[in-house]
Amino acid sequence: MRISELARASGVPVATIKFYLREGLLPDGVRTSPNQAQYDDAHVQRLRLIRALVGAGGLSLAATRNVLGHIDRPTGLTLDLLGSAHQAVAPALPDEVDLAAAVALLRRWGWNACVDAADSGDEGRVDDALGGLAVALAALEDAGFVVEPDRMDTYGQSMMQVAQAEIDGLPTDTPSAAVRYVVLGTVLVEPVLLALRRLAQREASAARFPQTEPDV
Amino acid sequence: MRISELARASGVPVATIKFYLREGLLPDGVRTSPNQAQYDDAHVQRLRLIRALVGAGGLSLAATRNVLGHIDRPTGLTLDLLGSAHQAVAPALPDEVDLAAAVALLRRWGWNACVDAADSGDEGRVDDALGGLAVALAALEDAGFVVEPDRMDTYGQSMMQVAQAEIDGLPTDTPSAAVRYVVLGTVLVEPVLLALRRLAQREASAARFPQTEPDV
Repeated sequence: MRISELARASGVPVATIKFYLREGLLPDGVRTSPNQAQYDDAHVQRLRLIRALVGAGGLSLAATRNVLGHIDRPTGLTLDLLGSAHQAVAPALPDEVDLAAAVALLRRWGWNACVDAADSGDEGRVDDALGGLAVALAALEDAGFVVEPDRMDTYGQSMMQVAQAEIDGLPTDTPSAAVRYVVLGTVLVEPVLLALRRLAQREASAARFPQTEPDV
Repeated sequence: MRISELARASGVPVATIKFYLREGLLPDGVRTSPNQAQYDDAHVQRLRLIRALVGAGGLSLAATRNVLGHIDRPTGLTLDLLGSAHQAVAPALPDEVDLAAAVALLRRWGWNACVDAADSGDEGRVDDALGGLAVALAALEDAGFVVEPDRMDTYGQSMMQVAQAEIDGLPTDTPSAAVRYVVLGTVLVEPVLLALRRLAQREASAARFPQTEPDV
């Protein structure tokens, strides 16, 4: 199909498609004349993927390029794969992060594999997932917001349930399928979980406080 | 204390404190001379809160002002409160959102209260939490990423566990304490949950694939 048909099929405007081509996010079509190229279904799929990452995923152009690179050129499996997938979408960490509270929490739960994996990483580089937890816990403390140990345990258990279901479903046929699953599962499922938490709070609140009158 | 002491006590530079004062995020101190004002512990607490929202919370200045406004001037309890807290921090939604898939999912789980609450909102305005779920589900579909019903059920159950623990801990003594709890719980706990999910994925992956060799 020509670029105008590709635009129609994908719902992405021609100017945006040309931008993605220039930026190397979308592979070139097969050139049929100096001013024309042919595109196929793979281009439609790729455009829908880019739109999902940039749109609901909320990724920057650089992060999108990074994620697509991981999908196009997978470099490992399972732990390595998870590490690089998380790194592709992780928020930047400050240079100095105190990991003590995060490590103590994970050790208390017996999550030793992920602490040990973090330890074995590059010297001097803070592990993204562990560092992310440390920064998030520090922010709670800074704000004077106390999460009791019981509730923190509920958070850990619930997220383990989520992760267990996700790892059970990990496709193991090709590295590329696995990376795609992990990267998209990280980027695109996060907004689903956060939206479900908000809705569940309302549902639980309605059950606990059946008569909700504004009282101020 | 003077502004230089406030800077030391809070860890926020004087120039930033002056910026927050100008922007109205931090209440003025008590003026003791044309060029001097006195600040107290409430200012230290407020600065730590602002730093947490802007920093780990990743909120914009406008969103931070909105959140602080909700804490300073609470306007309701429970469902209303949850709605306004979520609204304070919710990502912007597109004008047109197809809610059908989100509503069908919640009805399947019997989460009727939150669907009904969304229905009873302002005419023509899409409910933030329900709209957020709809947009997130559409992004999965756009990307061609299939989440099987079983796994979606696990997501719902896990988030309900999280929400139940949170609503059980809701302080009911003053509206202001409740709003603070809900708003900060929304903004500051989200990064904790997402970091825990990533770490749990590693832990579950290490248990499922004990020998993890890069195989490519």
